[in-house]
Amino acid sequence: MKNFHIFDGDVTSPKGFQASGVHIGIKKKKKDMALIVSDVLAEGAGVFTRNQVCAAPVLISKENIKKGKVQAIIINSGNANACTGKEGHKNALKMLELTAEELKLSSENVLVASTGVIGVPLPMDIVERGIKNAAKALSYGGGIAAAEGILTTDTGTKKIGVEVEIDGKKVTIGGIAKGSGMIHPNMATMLAFITTDAKIEGGFLQSLLKNTVDKTYNMITVDGDTSTNDSVCMMANGLADNNILQEAHPEIEKFKEAFHYVNEYLAKTIVRDGEGATKFLEVEVVNSKTFEDGKAIVKSILNSNLVKTAFFGEDGNWGRIMCSIGYADSAIEVEKVEIYLGDEKKTIKIVEKGEGTKFTEEEIGEVLKEKELKVVVDLKMGNEKARGWGCDLSYDYVKINGAYRT
Amino acid sequence: MKNFHIFDGDVTSPKGFQASGVHIGIKKKKKDMALIVSDVLAEGAGVFTRNQVCAAPVLISKENIKKGKVQAIIINSGNANACTGKEGHKNALKMLELTAEELKLSSENVLVASTGVIGVPLPMDIVERGIKNAAKALSYGGGIAAAEGILTTDTGTKKIGVEVEIDGKKVTIGGIAKGSGMIHPNMATMLAFITTDAKIEGGFLQSLLKNTVDKTYNMITVDGDTSTNDSVCMMANGLADNNILQEAHPEIEKFKEAFHYVNEYLAKTIVRDGEGATKFLEVEVVNSKTFEDGKAIVKSILNSNLVKTAFFGEDGNWGRIMCSIGYADSAIEVEKVEIYLGDEKKTIKIVEKGEGTKFTEEEIGEVLKEKELKVVVDLKMGNEKARGWGCDLSYDYVKINGAYRT
Repeated sequence: MKNFHIFDGDVTSPKGFQASGVHIGIKKKKKDMALIVSDVLAEGAGVFTRNQVCAAPVLISKENIKKGKVQAIIINSGNANACTGKEGHKNALKMLELTAEELKLSSENVLVASTGVIGVPLPMDIVERGIKNAAKALSYGGGIAAAEGILTTDTGTKKIGVEVEIDGKKVTIGGIAKGSGMIHPNMATMLAFITTDAKIEGGFLQSLLKNTVDKTYNMITVDGDTSTNDSVCMMANGLADNNILQEAHPEIEKFKEAFHYVNEYLAKTIVRDGEGATKFLEVEVVNSKTFEDGKAIVKSILNSNLVKTAFFGEDGNWGRIMCSIGYADSAIEVEKVEIYLGDEKKTIKIVEKGEGTKFTEEEIGEVLKEKELKVVVDLKMGNEKARGWGCDLSYDYVKINGAYRT
Repeated sequence: MKNFHIFDGDVTSPKGFQASGVHIGIKKKKKDMALIVSDVLAEGAGVFTRNQVCAAPVLISKENIKKGKVQAIIINSGNANACTGKEGHKNALKMLELTAEELKLSSENVLVASTGVIGVPLPMDIVERGIKNAAKALSYGGGIAAAEGILTTDTGTKKIGVEVEIDGKKVTIGGIAKGSGMIHPNMATMLAFITTDAKIEGGFLQSLLKNTVDKTYNMITVDGDTSTNDSVCMMANGLADNNILQEAHPEIEKFKEAFHYVNEYLAKTIVRDGEGATKFLEVEVVNSKTFEDGKAIVKSILNSNLVKTAFFGEDGNWGRIMCSIGYADSAIEVEKVEIYLGDEKKTIKIVEKGEGTKFTEEEIGEVLKEKELKVVVDLKMGNEKARGWGCDLSYDYVKINGAYRT
């Protein structure tokens, strides 16, 4: 039993948030701009890519979060505004100013995010008109349109809402996200925007977001490439009127659970929609000495092209899994390793004491046909564990990313 | 002008080496065993995979190299004898004993290497008969057959010979190697066997091999997977009768150059034949602070699935290259970075001061059509450099490694 209620919500589900998603003309036809606005100044928090080649909007949003409160987030898709130099920086600042002007806010309280092609200057005439349109289109039901406006190669929107009772008050958390290539954890690895009407202490919110990102978005991988634009940004506007949330609040665990759920859900949805993906893989390492040890192995398995193509081929090649465990940056005792492979219905122990067990081709074939698979690696070395999510590597991944030649 | 002569040689080109390659029945039709033998006890050296899940033959050969001299190397393909537990260890030892018996050597002077499927016990009846046949088939011209016997998914043999004059004597170095999947540098990442008739001090030989491996085999990548069986093994039998080679020898640089050439040639040949590869990529990072900094960036670019698919698609997406530079474990100053892309005939500066230059689609398209491409990244931060080799990521890579489903 979960202590919270999950529903098909988004960033306008919490009290006092409006949003919009519009087509402004960066992309040919699809929506390419989104705006999320709180009725009142909100606590802001953000976690950003660790890629040294990071985009102008990332640098600017980071600064604004440090400065304090946030009231609006402007996002464009179709152009990452990355590797665009001084002009790119100026353009990102201009996006803040234009948004602030339309909404009558200070530009310090606005965040900006971009996603799309790297290295092409933003078409600022289009963006300028676009921001005006996005501001006009704002509505309390605009979260769905915003979820559409941030997409790139995604095949569908990614959104979620949860409600949790805190101090007898209904607190709502909503989120939207986009994938689906250049997805590799070293921070959020994509865009996600979270809103909540919870009243929450600003510093606490930032550390909560950071910890949650580490166990959710940072545990997913599509292709091992850490993008230049990854951002998870959030606003907490306090309109639910609960007692202020921080570590000592008696119901903080309940809130944390709900908050974690939203982010894990969005992270997994990004992987499910990974470029060309036909299989969703959950990898859990149990009984590792440390979380970091477990994480290194989770990532190593999920990033192995050979493991990924084996799953695409529905081939029970556990040797490739053992191999990828062996080269992870984490000491293991090979002769202790156990590996389980399963789906919802059935789990097969495929490795015992570091060696293959005697499963039949039919047995494993049955499991490998499923779309959602789970690999559990038992290291028998400690009491920590780590869990992550990835997908297979298919012809379509190559097609999507090498499209010019086909 | 090179100080040495390159020719189409192999491991039996140096004086006093015999070899054979035979079909013993691990694979259906192709040769699956090779044997290389020196007429006299030779100095041995070896560098092996750093994967913790390493195969029994790796552990055993390592030990034998530590013990001293080497006179024979027995290799089977089609079965890696990895993740095969105590039985696998026993079987690898048995291979040594059988080889020693046939050749009337001590099993301490024999090395063993295996490559192929992980996790399947060696068929020892086949191997036993096979070793006898391999011993019978030994000849002074058997290097070509040996080069065939070690292959797995390779599309052709990989072999080379060089001659260099040392102390007025003709010294010959020969080598053979195999790829072509699970190729990622953290050691040799494949099998390579080098022979020479040079007289050379044992400890010096081991450190020379180690240093050379770090700049050759360890600088290539096909798919980012470090195998369980990677081995580069060598024998130097001294029959060229030069004065003993070591750091103080007046002509040591000449020998080092020739030796480096053999290993770089084999490493590059492995990448050229990478699974599904349609493009050969050389990446050079210049003006890095340290070799390690440069190496981290070389690897990051060559391992990026997005860069690899872009090259497959003949797409001049320099943003993906910048992105993969940015997440490498090496501090850079983005606004200094320059990137050049070229082939034999033409080089285009595609990035200046961290931003794209104004090249045309036609210009870059012309270059990208070539089969062999070079990327040079100038960091403008120091005086070191690093160079590595890789290939693109094609439909065929997915096909070869996910074959069961197609």
